[in-house]
Amino acid sequence: MTKAPTVQDVARAAGVSRQTVSNVLNTPDIVRPVTRDRVLQAIVDLGYRRHAAARMLRTRRSSTIGIHLDSYAGGVSGVVLDRFVHALTEHASERGMRMLVYAARSPEDEIQRLGELTDGGEIDAVVLTGTVHDDPRAAWLRTRVTPFVSFGRPWQDDDLGAPAHPWVDVDGAAGTREATEYALEAGPRVAFLGWPSGSGTGDERERGWREQMALAGLSGPRLESPESVPAAEAVMRDALAREELDAVVCVSDSTAIGAHLAALSIGRGDLPIIGFDNTPVAEAMGLSSVEQQPELVAVGALELLMGPSGDVVVPREPGHVLVIPRLVVRTRGR
Amino acid sequence: MTKAPTVQDVARAAGVSRQTVSNVLNTPDIVRPVTRDRVLQAIVDLGYRRHAAARMLRTRRSSTIGIHLDSYAGGVSGVVLDRFVHALTEHASERGMRMLVYAARSPEDEIQRLGELTDGGEIDAVVLTGTVHDDPRAAWLRTRVTPFVSFGRPWQDDDLGAPAHPWVDVDGAAGTREATEYALEAGPRVAFLGWPSGSGTGDERERGWREQMALAGLSGPRLESPESVPAAEAVMRDALAREELDAVVCVSDSTAIGAHLAALSIGRGDLPIIGFDNTPVAEAMGLSSVEQQPELVAVGALELLMGPSGDVVVPREPGHVLVIPRLVVRTRGR
Repeated sequence: MTKAPTVQDVARAAGVSRQTVSNVLNTPDIVRPVTRDRVLQAIVDLGYRRHAAARMLRTRRSSTIGIHLDSYAGGVSGVVLDRFVHALTEHASERGMRMLVYAARSPEDEIQRLGELTDGGEIDAVVLTGTVHDDPRAAWLRTRVTPFVSFGRPWQDDDLGAPAHPWVDVDGAAGTREATEYALEAGPRVAFLGWPSGSGTGDERERGWREQMALAGLSGPRLESPESVPAAEAVMRDALAREELDAVVCVSDSTAIGAHLAALSIGRGDLPIIGFDNTPVAEAMGLSSVEQQPELVAVGALELLMGPSGDVVVPREPGHVLVIPRLVVRTRGR
Repeated sequence: MTKAPTVQDVARAAGVSRQTVSNVLNTPDIVRPVTRDRVLQAIVDLGYRRHAAARMLRTRRSSTIGIHLDSYAGGVSGVVLDRFVHALTEHASERGMRMLVYAARSPEDEIQRLGELTDGGEIDAVVLTGTVHDDPRAAWLRTRVTPFVSFGRPWQDDDLGAPAHPWVDVDGAAGTREATEYALEAGPRVAFLGWPSGSGTGDERERGWREQMALAGLSGPRLESPESVPAAEAVMRDALAREELDAVVCVSDSTAIGAHLAALSIGRGDLPIIGFDNTPVAEAMGLSSVEQQPELVAVGALELLMGPSGDVVVPREPGHVLVIPRLVVRTRGR
């Protein structure tokens, strides 16, 4: 069995007392240089590492960032958040930070958990996901002066000019503009298959399609379906029976799959249909899709949280990072 | 700003010294009962919580379990591991444990990270995933006497009778036996679409199909494809052109999707095709699939790691938990 070296081992190797080793670690100025060198040499030789608890007590820093891990809700787009957590773990590790994941069943429950984790000094900072207007978690974190950043904008009046808190998000309209530009190569009749109006994310994605169509002097049919494959399939089947379409830009991969199945069922498997989120489903079915680039979102979140210095900071002025998504083009080639 | 109460605050409220508060927390027996009661009352009134670092130094326990989070590899089945991490986070939380996720690019890199985390006292135990035969991480953890459990069996001679280390896994053969039993309701010609032989997981799933077919006095064609939607689609297109099939049991959801697309393209969208992993893709496309139940895997892992006492323990005899998957039946109803 290999055992980690202790302060005692270092003291023995350097021929000094434990107290002297402790002084070298904590108050090196009071130790004679010749002794200090001997102790530092022993620390290096033995590969001694200070216990995390001791480091935490000294610095009051845990070097740990907390993030809520939702319980698995199913659905095709949950993978975007998981990719974000994966990327955050990798990039945080490169910056010497740990990621602690916690569970919570409601915003109130999450605030309770955050209270325990911050009171206990177990986390220095928080990454919020699934932000809502007037988010109670953000308000609570502000009163605690706990550094945080959210994946998702605060959905307030001036998120871009004067954000209520630091956030990173994906520019949904830029994504559907690019998707629409590509779809128009197939012909002028480009429909949008969207969710019912009123969701910030869905309205934003619809705007990109509308703007790009207007740029080309066009408008097209707007179809509507809830986030469900069979519902989207039924809507698209009706639409295709009613009118001729050259391509369809969809608000999500689920709706795109439904649209593709409807097209397949009438022998139009070649109809260009573009999804959103570039999930494994879109990849598996060979559908084009707008990719949110969660890896860039993770890098942006850490930039806002840690700043150029690499320390976790409470930003003086809340900033934001808006990631431009990219279109992944696939052709089923049938 | 609300600030967490300190030992100083407790001392002031109880009218005692900081040392007395510390004694109540660490060596209560030496404090007079009347004083102890007063201090405990102040602790309760103020909602004082001991700093995690102090608790860690005292108990040498971090109450934290480490788990490697792979970088996102894409593919439809990665979601199974993510569901496992989600469930682990929830159930660990219920047992008062935290989950720390870490990144690593190779087994050697992972051992390095585990060394830092265990040396630093940041984790008490480890959950390994993606086990291989003669896993270097398992060997290393054993020499360090660090408690661990793996999702995935050690793939050694006698995993069930005398496992090399504690593990939880899913009984793949039981899953395909159930899938085959269901498929046989459609008719006797039930094919298996598997991966090339040689993978422990794939061979195990094929065995279940073969056994259930033999029980019915049948055998069926074995088709083979790599884990790729277009490859499976091509294989199934050839097979359907060659022979009549009543149903297909597949080794994965990716191969099942390929098979379904091939069937759709010849107007046989109603051909029963059963996948494995019950991913969002299978759900979205309305395909039946064998569900690994990663939530039960998470519960089993924590049982093996923490035992009935709720403490992280090094099991005296490595045990195992084999989760029986369940078939989720869907009919596209076309």
